[in-house]
Amino acid sequence: MNKKLPALDEIFSPRGVAVVGVSPNGRGFATGVMMSLRAAGFPDIYPINPRYTEVFGMPCYPSLTAVPGVVDHVVVSIPAESALSLLDDCAAKGVKSVHFFTAGFSESGIKERAELEKTMLEKARAGGFRIIGPNCIGLHVPKSKLVNTTTVSIEPGPVGFISQSGGHASNLPQYGSPRGLRFSKVVSYGNGLDIDECELLDYFTDDPDTEIIAAYIEGVRNGRGFIDALRKAAAKKPVVIYKGGTTEAGKRAAHGHTASLTSSVAAFEALCRQMNAIRVDDLDEMVDVIAALRFASPVPKGTGAAVIGAGGGPSVLASDELEKAGLQVPPLSGETQNGLLKFLPLAGSILINPIDAGNLATPDAIRETLNAVSRVPEIDMLVYHLGFHPISSWGGGRFVMPEFLNPTTQAMNAVKKTTGKPVLLVLRPPLNLDDMKDFLAAQDGFVKAGLPVFYSLHQAGRAMARVISWEKRRA
Amino acid sequence: MNKKLPALDEIFSPRGVAVVGVSPNGRGFATGVMMSLRAAGFPDIYPINPRYTEVFGMPCYPSLTAVPGVVDHVVVSIPAESALSLLDDCAAKGVKSVHFFTAGFSESGIKERAELEKTMLEKARAGGFRIIGPNCIGLHVPKSKLVNTTTVSIEPGPVGFISQSGGHASNLPQYGSPRGLRFSKVVSYGNGLDIDECELLDYFTDDPDTEIIAAYIEGVRNGRGFIDALRKAAAKKPVVIYKGGTTEAGKRAAHGHTASLTSSVAAFEALCRQMNAIRVDDLDEMVDVIAALRFASPVPKGTGAAVIGAGGGPSVLASDELEKAGLQVPPLSGETQNGLLKFLPLAGSILINPIDAGNLATPDAIRETLNAVSRVPEIDMLVYHLGFHPISSWGGGRFVMPEFLNPTTQAMNAVKKTTGKPVLLVLRPPLNLDDMKDFLAAQDGFVKAGLPVFYSLHQAGRAMARVISWEKRRA
Repeated sequence: MNKKLPALDEIFSPRGVAVVGVSPNGRGFATGVMMSLRAAGFPDIYPINPRYTEVFGMPCYPSLTAVPGVVDHVVVSIPAESALSLLDDCAAKGVKSVHFFTAGFSESGIKERAELEKTMLEKARAGGFRIIGPNCIGLHVPKSKLVNTTTVSIEPGPVGFISQSGGHASNLPQYGSPRGLRFSKVVSYGNGLDIDECELLDYFTDDPDTEIIAAYIEGVRNGRGFIDALRKAAAKKPVVIYKGGTTEAGKRAAHGHTASLTSSVAAFEALCRQMNAIRVDDLDEMVDVIAALRFASPVPKGTGAAVIGAGGGPSVLASDELEKAGLQVPPLSGETQNGLLKFLPLAGSILINPIDAGNLATPDAIRETLNAVSRVPEIDMLVYHLGFHPISSWGGGRFVMPEFLNPTTQAMNAVKKTTGKPVLLVLRPPLNLDDMKDFLAAQDGFVKAGLPVFYSLHQAGRAMARVISWEKRRA
Repeated sequence: MNKKLPALDEIFSPRGVAVVGVSPNGRGFATGVMMSLRAAGFPDIYPINPRYTEVFGMPCYPSLTAVPGVVDHVVVSIPAESALSLLDDCAAKGVKSVHFFTAGFSESGIKERAELEKTMLEKARAGGFRIIGPNCIGLHVPKSKLVNTTTVSIEPGPVGFISQSGGHASNLPQYGSPRGLRFSKVVSYGNGLDIDECELLDYFTDDPDTEIIAAYIEGVRNGRGFIDALRKAAAKKPVVIYKGGTTEAGKRAAHGHTASLTSSVAAFEALCRQMNAIRVDDLDEMVDVIAALRFASPVPKGTGAAVIGAGGGPSVLASDELEKAGLQVPPLSGETQNGLLKFLPLAGSILINPIDAGNLATPDAIRETLNAVSRVPEIDMLVYHLGFHPISSWGGGRFVMPEFLNPTTQAMNAVKKTTGKPVLLVLRPPLNLDDMKDFLAAQDGFVKAGLPVFYSLHQAGRAMARVISWEKRRA
């Protein structure tokens, strides 16, 4: 007889966690999770490996059933062949959930391995516990200190991320953390044997800790269920979806990756449009759109952008990039341009929008320009670009000094407060160590001030166009 | 009566250079050029400023006519109002060329300033010398040690770059230098008052030091002349063109930037197609295409790419990105896949192409895989991606150790030598200091081995598709 299954909320806040397959050499997924849990201060961690009695100063147990304390969640990285006997131990121990990092199941294309998965699910149902994966990196819940990495901020935040790919489940927080993104839960579900995208989407829809839902999906098995879950989710919260496997080769890769049969791109796009989910084309764009939703708020009323920065060639590029991405760069009137000449030089400047002047790399010139331009009715947002031109290049630490950063971010936030028009930062990442130091410090300063940071004009424009279009359909 | 004008070749190898407008505080364009010339070992540099007798330990002269030695080339950064009297001095001194960094001429939109430009040209014609600019960063000729920056390699190389924008003239070498691009001449021509894109294109067509011609152009004044020059150039050498000002806002910016009246995008695209010039959409793509022409040679016979690396989600992304960019990712036969299983693990691997396996971050696995896959007739090039996935992330210095880099680059070059199929590296730049150190060392290792490095799958695919299509039309 099947037992009552635990709710996802219980699974996301386990009392004890066992990590099966740890090793004292420091390598491997299980050991990494164990160290991450310890670094985050998770209280009851039980390393399991019959070959050791101690790993990294922690007692190591020969089996799950040998653990003295309560184990709610089990992280597994052992060969697929040993999965069934481990699940018997899970049932005996009375766990609530088992996460298999282990791969080599249905995604291998081997019939016996697909059947093995089915048997695993039967055992889980009979034992009254849930399975996450297999073939994934599992749960990352900062609030519960249930984490699987040490390299991203574990401060909890409002973004919930569902990912069929373990790589992306790791990469989104990696890419987003320095830009201020913080997560409620990141769930990598891999082959989705038990817990799948529909159940997770439903969960995040009602989760009070999640304000923005992000999902990386290669394919769905239950189309009807997914449509229902997506409809409910998108009606309540912004849902950002990246669909992997949109080309023939991508579909093949997705099938080999998580045994997914991906649906047609056109059908998926139509679905997102109908439900008003925000579809993105890659993981970088997902970070951009989430950053726009979080920090370029309120969502601009229109697509009119003022582009401000130093460098003529880059300004030409800026205009082209933003208009191609779907924004407008409306010309400023002669009157507004004359106003700008009070604090910007004539020689070497472009004032019609984009606005380019050599001194647009000083807080005073930036503040005056932002103030003047934000009063123009056709302008809905202000884009300041930095790091494209020798005059504004990283170097010398100028942009990371408090004398630059503090008045600049204050001016940017004042514009947003006064006019309701967000200011966007576009910082081109440099590819050398000295400038990277300055870049990281500047990014940190802007992010701490609550400003959205993008790495290219194209990416800023593309994300803002998506968010503005989403807001319009929602209204 | 007008004197005979000096040829461009003379201008690119001047004997003495005067730099007008230097300052002992170390700031400003003129001072930067002076320091760059000195750092490069240019022999006869004459700083000019009536306010000083010495700058940075070099004698400083009150005027051009006070210089004791020969002056062939003059670099000018003084207010536009002083331009005419300076040109009188140039005539008196018998110089060959004058480069005006100074801006605030026709591009300002002020009628008197446009007329000033005309008078300047008359003075130059009468004095028998040429003008570069105004409103540009001038000449960068490594072979002559006539350089304007200290931050890029000054080793001469086969790329000639013509740029209407000073920012781009600075940025292309900056971006391209770490990826192995070396330059014959970089000429920033700004408003193109005298020396313009047509004359430069003609020059590079016949320049024995230039094998690849790159051009950033906002607008051309002599359409017929440009068409003729482009036809001759593209018939002889690969010409990579980035046209700025392709949207309304971009055109406005271009006009304010270099007083250019840009032509229609469609007409420009058609022209590039007819002439078989390689059109690119931004400066990053220009670097990518030049890197492909230089280091992914011979140009692949077809668009079939094998994608090799670690990470399932990234592999799905890889396929989507490359196919969207215009390449094919053909599936491998069962036989080839079985062959791969001799050295790749079953669990967690995708073998059909893309090829993803956890151990594809070791030289042995990479070599075996490259060898096996390069024998497949449908595969025309091999793309190895690194730095997308936790397992292959930068960190720990693994990828920068000689034990990794040397056998890996040897295997890659052996594949190219044996099969004529190039191997491309895709390295995702990390955004933290520790990983950036590893990234730069790995990039350096691959570049020194003569391999093309790209920063994203999309960029690699886009550049290769452009180059393959160019080669097909050429053949």
